[in-house]
Amino acid sequence: MALVVKKFGGSSVANAERVFNVARIITEDYKKGNDVVVVVSAQGDTTDDLIEKAVEINPGNRSKREMDMLLAAGEQISIALLAMAIEKLGFPVVSLLGWQAGFVTDSKYSVARIKNVNPERLRNELDKRSIVIVAGFQGVNKYDDVTTLGRGGSDTSAVAIAATLKADLCQIYTDVDGVYTADPRKIKGAKKLDEITYDEMLELATLGAQVLNNRSVEMAKKYNVELEVLSSLEQKPGTIVKEVTSMEKMLVKGVACDTDIIIVSIIGLKDAPGIAFKVFNQLSRKNVNVDIILQSVGRHGTKDITFTVPKGQKAETLEAIENIRPLIAFDDLVIKDTVGKVSIVGAGMETHPGVASKMFEALSDANINIQMISTSEIKISVLIDAVDCQKAVQVVHDAFHG
Amino acid sequence: MALVVKKFGGSSVANAERVFNVARIITEDYKKGNDVVVVVSAQGDTTDDLIEKAVEINPGNRSKREMDMLLAAGEQISIALLAMAIEKLGFPVVSLLGWQAGFVTDSKYSVARIKNVNPERLRNELDKRSIVIVAGFQGVNKYDDVTTLGRGGSDTSAVAIAATLKADLCQIYTDVDGVYTADPRKIKGAKKLDEITYDEMLELATLGAQVLNNRSVEMAKKYNVELEVLSSLEQKPGTIVKEVTSMEKMLVKGVACDTDIIIVSIIGLKDAPGIAFKVFNQLSRKNVNVDIILQSVGRHGTKDITFTVPKGQKAETLEAIENIRPLIAFDDLVIKDTVGKVSIVGAGMETHPGVASKMFEALSDANINIQMISTSEIKISVLIDAVDCQKAVQVVHDAFHG
Repeated sequence: MALVVKKFGGSSVANAERVFNVARIITEDYKKGNDVVVVVSAQGDTTDDLIEKAVEINPGNRSKREMDMLLAAGEQISIALLAMAIEKLGFPVVSLLGWQAGFVTDSKYSVARIKNVNPERLRNELDKRSIVIVAGFQGVNKYDDVTTLGRGGSDTSAVAIAATLKADLCQIYTDVDGVYTADPRKIKGAKKLDEITYDEMLELATLGAQVLNNRSVEMAKKYNVELEVLSSLEQKPGTIVKEVTSMEKMLVKGVACDTDIIIVSIIGLKDAPGIAFKVFNQLSRKNVNVDIILQSVGRHGTKDITFTVPKGQKAETLEAIENIRPLIAFDDLVIKDTVGKVSIVGAGMETHPGVASKMFEALSDANINIQMISTSEIKISVLIDAVDCQKAVQVVHDAFHG
Repeated sequence: MALVVKKFGGSSVANAERVFNVARIITEDYKKGNDVVVVVSAQGDTTDDLIEKAVEINPGNRSKREMDMLLAAGEQISIALLAMAIEKLGFPVVSLLGWQAGFVTDSKYSVARIKNVNPERLRNELDKRSIVIVAGFQGVNKYDDVTTLGRGGSDTSAVAIAATLKADLCQIYTDVDGVYTADPRKIKGAKKLDEITYDEMLELATLGAQVLNNRSVEMAKKYNVELEVLSSLEQKPGTIVKEVTSMEKMLVKGVACDTDIIIVSIIGLKDAPGIAFKVFNQLSRKNVNVDIILQSVGRHGTKDITFTVPKGQKAETLEAIENIRPLIAFDDLVIKDTVGKVSIVGAGMETHPGVASKMFEALSDANINIQMISTSEIKISVLIDAVDCQKAVQVVHDAFHG
């Protein structure tokens, strides 16, 4: 007897057939004697359809409050339909909206943060041995207004419930059957991982392996909620995400490539204190997400600062630098658009110096030029030319998992 | 400065263009300095679409609780879209779900009754000079579960808010521009009424002139809420429904015909006490709505009982009579399917004996045979052959309004 939280995304409940598939997964678990809480997203295209209606009526100045009110209807429909399917299979069930399930959030409409989950109603329903279906992605603020949690919000809802109820496991059902050592659609020999740590998962998610939403992994780590990423279409174990993985773990859990970045180099800055602060302070005011930063000594007592930012933030980045140009004075600004960041992720690699050299060797053997290198405790990233990305991931993956 | 409650049905907000039409009606009133609360139904076919989804998943044993959860999403969508349209026009607005607007109901899912409306949130929003858009048709019960009020529920929601806030007027916008003396699509010379009493409105609604839901008229009468029935497509005054209409009123407010009934005659009952009780007690146990009842003396010391029931309740009626056949013993059971009930409605007609004879004269002149007659304080009904219905309404209408 365990308490299990299961989360199903919109594509898992897109039509009646899939709703019944999910209903069967849920009731199979319930029949074993487990308490089951289920978090569901809106069906398939519902959210997009609702957004379209909103844009038709008010493309410009509609409020986020009303947008949240509108979008929250999507999960309301899916929880009721899933509950009806479970009723059809003959099991006790109750669907709950975000506010009914006790989700209290702040008032940042469309990107609200969960403040707490009042577990009373959830516990009462579980005590009655009901299967509980909860609308993901939504809550209420202190004014009793409906809020939504933003992209990936249903994952966060599921983890929050698991944390609140101290669930034994939080299962995130997706259309892939787990977390892989590399993207299995692109890299030969990519292997499914049995286990991965929260930190490794977070690094991989950042690298574009968007199996799990980062906020939900951070919350799972904070409250020590054991996650399982698994497929809603195949009945087999997925990947467990937890604090410490077993001893015989692979050193390198994943290899991934991110081409959604640009390199910005500020050349010939005066070599004086506070210059770097002024640059990055200004970028942070513009909410630019700076990733890798390198500073090197340039010619004639100047220095160069090079960093990466997401492609989508190029405009803000240039604007920020222009804003402070009078304050910092530099010779040149160089932008490089066609760049790829190849990273390997694995807890414990900082104590194995051989890991980095093995990666560099593989790239060198493949004649791929490394432009920048950045390392952290559990990650090594190199910046290379974008056209080499696919090949780079394959040779690095082969080196560690071949 | 007045407080006005406006209710718009689903067809009034069926698409973006109509949503803006409604938004303009609302903001025109707001601009005059009035406080405006608006009750909206689900858009056009939304409710039917949701019912279809539910039937696809669970045609048999889905619970009414989950059905209410599902259907309530329909109004959630329409209130958010209407609010966005009003935001687009540049006015302060807030949409509220049933529970947010304070609607507490009993727990009879799908046909819930309003227990009370907590006006706090509504008053707070009006104090801020916001236009308030409320989801009609829905509330919550004492368990915080979503309930719906059943057919015509949005009218009832509007009247309940008007009663709670002591609104100056409750306007029910429809696709007709008021209440007519007869169905204007069928009867030449049908006139729009400026005013009508609650009781007259109730009688006309029962007769199939379904402009207003009966529950809402009953509630308006109970709490003395002045109603106006008017068109959302034309900007002109509609029909006011209130307790007492002006002195120079028409005696006969409406003529209508109902062909959705059958006549049941139980012939040759024993002429003993308690026979009628047994018959109608049994019909009431089967929830059969008996309308006109006539009892007459038959041949050889027997009696006949004749009554009308809705066409849709024929099966229950026959079953009820068969059930008690051993107890009451009768000679024959005669059903007449093709019958029409023509009624005239008008407060005060009981003190004007000329009204009935004028009606009978008109029918006689048109060679229409009257089979049964029934009178109440504000209504006279006659049963005639169904084929004569249209003609009968026309000649009676001509007699009073020609």
